[in-house]
Amino acid sequence: MTKTRLEAFSDGVIAIIVTIMVLEIKVPHEATMSALLGLWPVFMSYLLSFVFISIYWGNHHHLLHTVNHVNSQIIWSNMHLLFWLSLVPFSTGWMGENHFQELPVALYAINLLLCAIAYYILQTTIMKHHTFSEKLAEAMKKQEKKGMASLFLYIVSIIAAFFNPVISEIIFGVVAIMWVIPDKNIERALKD
Amino acid sequence: MTKTRLEAFSDGVIAIIVTIMVLEIKVPHEATMSALLGLWPVFMSYLLSFVFISIYWGNHHHLLHTVNHVNSQIIWSNMHLLFWLSLVPFSTGWMGENHFQELPVALYAINLLLCAIAYYILQTTIMKHHTFSEKLAEAMKKQEKKGMASLFLYIVSIIAAFFNPVISEIIFGVVAIMWVIPDKNIERALKD
Amino acid sequence: MTKTRLEAFSDGVIAIIVTIMVLEIKVPHEATMSALLGLWPVFMSYLLSFVFISIYWGNHHHLLHTVNHVNSQIIWSNMHLLFWLSLVPFSTGWMGENHFQELPVALYAINLLLCAIAYYILQTTIMKHHTFSEKLAEAMKKQEKKGMASLFLYIVSIIAAFFNPVISEIIFGVVAIMWVIPDKNIERALKD
Amino acid sequence: MTKTRLEAFSDGVIAIIVTIMVLEIKVPHEATMSALLGLWPVFMSYLLSFVFISIYWGNHHHLLHTVNHVNSQIIWSNMHLLFWLSLVPFSTGWMGENHFQELPVALYAINLLLCAIAYYILQTTIMKHHTFSEKLAEAMKKQEKKGMASLFLYIVSIIAAFFNPVISEIIFGVVAIMWVIPDKNIERALKD
Repeated sequence: MTKTRLEAFSDGVIAIIVTIMVLEIKVPHEATMSALLGLWPVFMSYLLSFVFISIYWGNHHHLLHTVNHVNSQIIWSNMHLLFWLSLVPFSTGWMGENHFQELPVALYAINLLLCAIAYYILQTTIMKHHTFSEKLAEAMKKQEKKGMASLFLYIVSIIAAFFNPVISEIIFGVVAIMWVIPDKNIERALKD
Repeated sequence: MTKTRLEAFSDGVIAIIVTIMVLEIKVPHEATMSALLGLWPVFMSYLLSFVFISIYWGNHHHLLHTVNHVNSQIIWSNMHLLFWLSLVPFSTGWMGENHFQELPVALYAINLLLCAIAYYILQTTIMKHHTFSEKLAEAMKKQEKKGMASLFLYIVSIIAAFFNPVISEIIFGVVAIMWVIPDKNIERALKD
Repeated sequence: MTKTRLEAFSDGVIAIIVTIMVLEIKVPHEATMSALLGLWPVFMSYLLSFVFISIYWGNHHHLLHTVNHVNSQIIWSNMHLLFWLSLVPFSTGWMGENHFQELPVALYAINLLLCAIAYYILQTTIMKHHTFSEKLAEAMKKQEKKGMASLFLYIVSIIAAFFNPVISEIIFGVVAIMWVIPDKNIERALKD
Repeated sequence: MTKTRLEAFSDGVIAIIVTIMVLEIKVPHEATMSALLGLWPVFMSYLLSFVFISIYWGNHHHLLHTVNHVNSQIIWSNMHLLFWLSLVPFSTGWMGENHFQELPVALYAINLLLCAIAYYILQTTIMKHHTFSEKLAEAMKKQEKKGMASLFLYIVSIIAAFFNPVISEIIFGVVAIMWVIPDKNIERALKD
């Protein structure tokens, strides 16, 4: 019961985050090709964030699937994650508006890093309050490794942004692909 | 369980898409009839998109009804569809703002085409992972034909936009009516 | 199942409508009392619409409670209602922005009238496809009377707006109070 | 059933409130550190309101958990609470935009006070219509005390805002911490 409402609320917030981002793609007043092409960086940053938020939604989904009972610590760890996710439309908009310049790219990377840390905290909090089957515990450990690799890559991309933002963008792409590739371990472990 | 959350998330995103579009109808500062009538193209494009998004919601609804288990491929095909749907408020706004000029009408048609392709991919993905009753399979085949006809009509409307956008608008209307007329086949097949 | 999703989608759209209206109360750039008081008409129109949308949500809630199976006609009657409801943030904003002048007040009344007609169509569609207990049928008849009275009052308020918008506002208040007063008939009939 | 929909609707509205607030953090047109730091007050007011709305969501969650049947009085008390909550994005935006000046801070405190009163009314309405186990009644009494303390602190912060807004901000922080610390009484009482 309680868990259902936590899921529903998180789904609502994530659905709104993913959709209001599109409001940052301001409708141009001219009906010309150049006006449309001028939106390219805003569109690309929207696409990138859409993928990242989708990944979080999917992982969040799997993570909460393992939860039996919800307590205050889990609720607040979850709110903490939603807080950083809710700032993604802002950092996405700033990055797109300024055509992937150094500082906005660095801020975007920091935002992703904070989301990843918040997710890690939520996962740890849930694991502390639950005992899992051996298989599931193993699968979650593997995902934790992936999470750690992402944390490291985000830190690299923050530093890289000040030298060459293109490197950071490539790193964002690598992390996204790393997560989009389905994580069959947890799915399989949950089935058993 | 998993399916419920996929439906809930999709419903949330589609509900937000359909509603934030209304924010593109900017409140005029004067209380005059001419200020109100000036909004006519924006209103018409809103109405058109409201109908299209409603059709997608209804079809999505029926399509997911047939699903038993959700996997990563289905989740990502669904996200792909939601991505193109989420751009509809932008292309609607651009078309309305520029009074149905060539380029915005073409872009709107491209957006509808991409949504239709994404829907087709989602349907194919779901059919690959499920075995249906003979009747349901037949009903879905019929709907696929309708989908193919829509794809063709969207392509025609993209080209037509550069000659006369009115032709494209008529095509949009035809496609909308084609889908609004209830598709009793799937409903009946699901009942059995 | 199907009904659950129709309810969830409608709830989502109505929740978004009621909340994005607040975005029309633009944050003033000065921290003065006069800047705040200048928002009075916008705030009042927001309050009025919040009450009306709430009433629709409550009635919609009760109406769908009586539904057993959903078909295409019910889905489209529902979408039709949501369409007119989705325009309320616009007509509310226009009325507030222009301090309850004649034309915006008339448009607001027209919008409420169209919502009421759409609701009436939805109710009729549902009643056509269902057979109710005697008590429930009687309770719904009573509510229909209330609906008819509202329709009449909305038409009066449209005409009145061009003579004196204050009369229209008083009528809006009367209709709102008429509906806020709990309708125990349906509640009681549903219990049996 | 009815209760589920009340919860779902409230969740939807609260999820939207918490997320659209982020739209008040306007994306700056320059990619400079000073442009980013200029957003500090807007960010801080967003963080504060995010925490307050989260607290309301959590408490609302627990409160409705105790409800068995929903009637018109409960529905309207709930709408009343949602109304004041829905104004939080506005008062948050005004406070941030004007860097925590006297009047906006006072208005923010008034808004929090009205939310607290509305919550108190909702709780009283629910308690009037339900009989609780001794333990749960006791736990709710304790929470009522906390609510009363908050009401008092909000009133103090309204007055303090005109002398020194910093005092009000400290009070906001104290109230937030008071509520973030988990309220295990109700959780425990509900378990029994």
